Amino acid sequence: MLRKVEDRSPRVVAAQPHGPAAAITRRAADRLRAGHLWVYRSDIESLVPAIGTTEIQPGALLTVMDSRGIPLGTGLYSAASQIAVRIVSNEAALPRAAYLEQLRERVLSALALRDQVAPESMEDDACRLLFSEADNLPGIVADRYNDLVILQLLTQGTAQDDVRNLLTEVLTDRLRPDTGGITLWERPDPKIRELEQLAHPAPGPLHPSTTETPQLTTIFTINGLRFHFDAGSGQKTGAFLDQRLNYAAAARYATGSALDICTYQGGFALHMAQNCRQVTGVDASRSALEVADRNRELNPGIPAQVEWIEADAFELLREYESTGQQYDTIVLDPPAFAKSKRAAEGAMRGYKELNLRAIKMLRPGGTLITCSCSHHVPLQEFTEVVSAAAADAGRRVQLLETRGAAPDHPAVLTLPETSYLKCLICRVG
Amino acid sequence: MLRKVEDRSPRVVAAQPHGPAAAITRRAADRLRAGHLWVYRSDIESLVPAIGTTEIQPGALLTVMDSRGIPLGTGLYSAASQIAVRIVSNEAALPRAAYLEQLRERVLSALALRDQVAPESMEDDACRLLFSEADNLPGIVADRYNDLVILQLLTQGTAQDDVRNLLTEVLTDRLRPDTGGITLWERPDPKIRELEQLAHPAPGPLHPSTTETPQLTTIFTINGLRFHFDAGSGQKTGAFLDQRLNYAAAARYATGSALDICTYQGGFALHMAQNCRQVTGVDASRSALEVADRNRELNPGIPAQVEWIEADAFELLREYESTGQQYDTIVLDPPAFAKSKRAAEGAMRGYKELNLRAIKMLRPGGTLITCSCSHHVPLQEFTEVVSAAAADAGRRVQLLETRGAAPDHPAVLTLPETSYLKCLICRVG
Repeated sequence: MLRKVEDRSPRVVAAQPHGPAAAITRRAADRLRAGHLWVYRSDIESLVPAIGTTEIQPGALLTVMDSRGIPLGTGLYSAASQIAVRIVSNEAALPRAAYLEQLRERVLSALALRDQVAPESMEDDACRLLFSEADNLPGIVADRYNDLVILQLLTQGTAQDDVRNLLTEVLTDRLRPDTGGITLWERPDPKIRELEQLAHPAPGPLHPSTTETPQLTTIFTINGLRFHFDAGSGQKTGAFLDQRLNYAAAARYATGSALDICTYQGGFALHMAQNCRQVTGVDASRSALEVADRNRELNPGIPAQVEWIEADAFELLREYESTGQQYDTIVLDPPAFAKSKRAAEGAMRGYKELNLRAIKMLRPGGTLITCSCSHHVPLQEFTEVVSAAAADAGRRVQLLETRGAAPDHPAVLTLPETSYLKCLICRVG
Repeated sequence: MLRKVEDRSPRVVAAQPHGPAAAITRRAADRLRAGHLWVYRSDIESLVPAIGTTEIQPGALLTVMDSRGIPLGTGLYSAASQIAVRIVSNEAALPRAAYLEQLRERVLSALALRDQVAPESMEDDACRLLFSEADNLPGIVADRYNDLVILQLLTQGTAQDDVRNLLTEVLTDRLRPDTGGITLWERPDPKIRELEQLAHPAPGPLHPSTTETPQLTTIFTINGLRFHFDAGSGQKTGAFLDQRLNYAAAARYATGSALDICTYQGGFALHMAQNCRQVTGVDASRSALEVADRNRELNPGIPAQVEWIEADAFELLREYESTGQQYDTIVLDPPAFAKSKRAAEGAMRGYKELNLRAIKMLRPGGTLITCSCSHHVPLQEFTEVVSAAAADAGRRVQLLETRGAAPDHPAVLTLPETSYLKCLICRVG
């Protein structure tokens, strides 16, 4: 967080440090003073290399200052991303050693938060440990699945050995010291690494770093249900831990015959199956459904009849609606339709259609659990589109709960872009 | 919910029923078709009394139609309120007997929802049973505190003996039949009854309706904590049951030394006191704090030191900030600052000041639990004002949870006005 600096007369480059610096537009400076943490490339007025050098190294720490030279803080510079600088400190000219020391403290603080909001238990041993900006750790994400921890270093400033080594040391030292420790994997996200123009190393274990074949799979537990995890495959870092408490809520509300649209590896479906007679999980990915079916087998106590259908969500809902299928509970958890602000309009049409068909297919008194993980569709707009679907369907809908990501996936209060997951629980009359 | 009617050529009063009717503006008709449930007085183009009569009785059921005479449904008419009609059915010309029969079904449906989302247990025996529009029961609210049920009939159409008798019959028949039944009180809200120009009867028991002195007080339990309830005093219908699950969340997050601003009868304070060393509850109402103190005595197992301070929230926070007071946890739960759309701007200033002072007084890593129950301040605006306070305080704030009212206080998805309670749980760096 940047402190508000008093408005003074111009002191051009008066505050310029010896290290590299970026002067940014007034609008961008105001945004940082309001707690935003990114500087877009288009907001940079000038880049000043360190004294005695001719260019700024990708991933370097640089001082950000307003157009009058008043320093606003230090950020990690990316020579490739549209987010040119990610602020890491409100101090100017932070040296790399101080950045790393700060990183250590912030990692410990993030882990302490998880001890509070997602403590390890018989019921739960998976959560997001480190969440980039939301934990004051831009460019660093780590997820834990029982004894496996998956690390992602997502920017030029963090995909470096000093950061990698420090995180390996702190995480292996701190996690499960009494029960065998962890295996730590780095798993690059190909798309983001392309955006950041990072090399594409094969994913590999950071700890233990022996040459023997390291552990790649595990079984993790959320809300008392067991799931397979395979560090070598899958979307995101492997599962949708952000939905952890929404899965538990779905289990509380679900009754009768349930449909889970975009079930992926069966998260919502298997949670609902604890209290339903019959559950159908639908996904376009056959390999995801194969994992879902193995997850079903991992939980033999589940009483419901469970089936998996490989299909496109839109096509299947159209067909089911035309054949008069009815359900007591429907979950909609599609992938992010809106990958950009421009795509948001098309996304709204997609949400409208899915929700309209689902509402029509619910029996009176049925439950709709409808999610959106599009960063570019705010909660209010998502609620409005579900509301429009309810009106078009001619059904009266009670909004019982408006939920977000679990608290091990926090957001930055002053950076609304970091709030992305919306989950509405509705009763359809 | 009103079905969308196809756009046809004008059929003026073709659909006019024999009973009373109101023709409304196109804008208002569009709003109803989108699932809204109110017709404002300013949207009425003409009122048509029933055939053979000269005026529409206050509280009558009337048919609402668009300006071309196409019927949109039936609503309860108020001759006094700015909300002139509250829609109760999408059928035109609904007779009173059918309205009452529908009411019975809707009350049973609302009670069934509470059995699911707020079941009676050793931990919980208080909840909102009937919530007006949100349960498809405009003008009717009922809250349960253990064996006492408080009924409010809030419109000209529902403050009538047929509704009163039906509700008495259904509620007393259905609630706690095996454990001694309930005492049912009607408790008029003086302000709303003035708006609706209703008579001000003394509150009285509807069941049992004997002439002997009826039960007026009870002890109810939420989240395992016990609270006094007195049907003869207090704000709202007596306690803030909508915060029930937010109280439980506060208990999970609170640590160390905690401050509860606008504690009323100690709801947040006593929940936090289960896990804190010391809790200070602040309220401007001495009588509320006297109940809070009696509630403290009801829960002798609470380990924390608890103190109550009678003070204005703004003045106390100013004083505490100037003397450098620090806390690990702060709850802000002020009354609705914005009672109208016009008052919203002043309300935002109030929220900003309270949140700024609270954030400054939190120790690093401390928890802020900040609420707004103003209908006229949407979640996004409230989040923005807390964000602005964080920026002004120069503190980095993680948003851990965005919460609303407990699901026994549902909202109408198509009537955003019915979503009112916001509760943000933040970690202040």
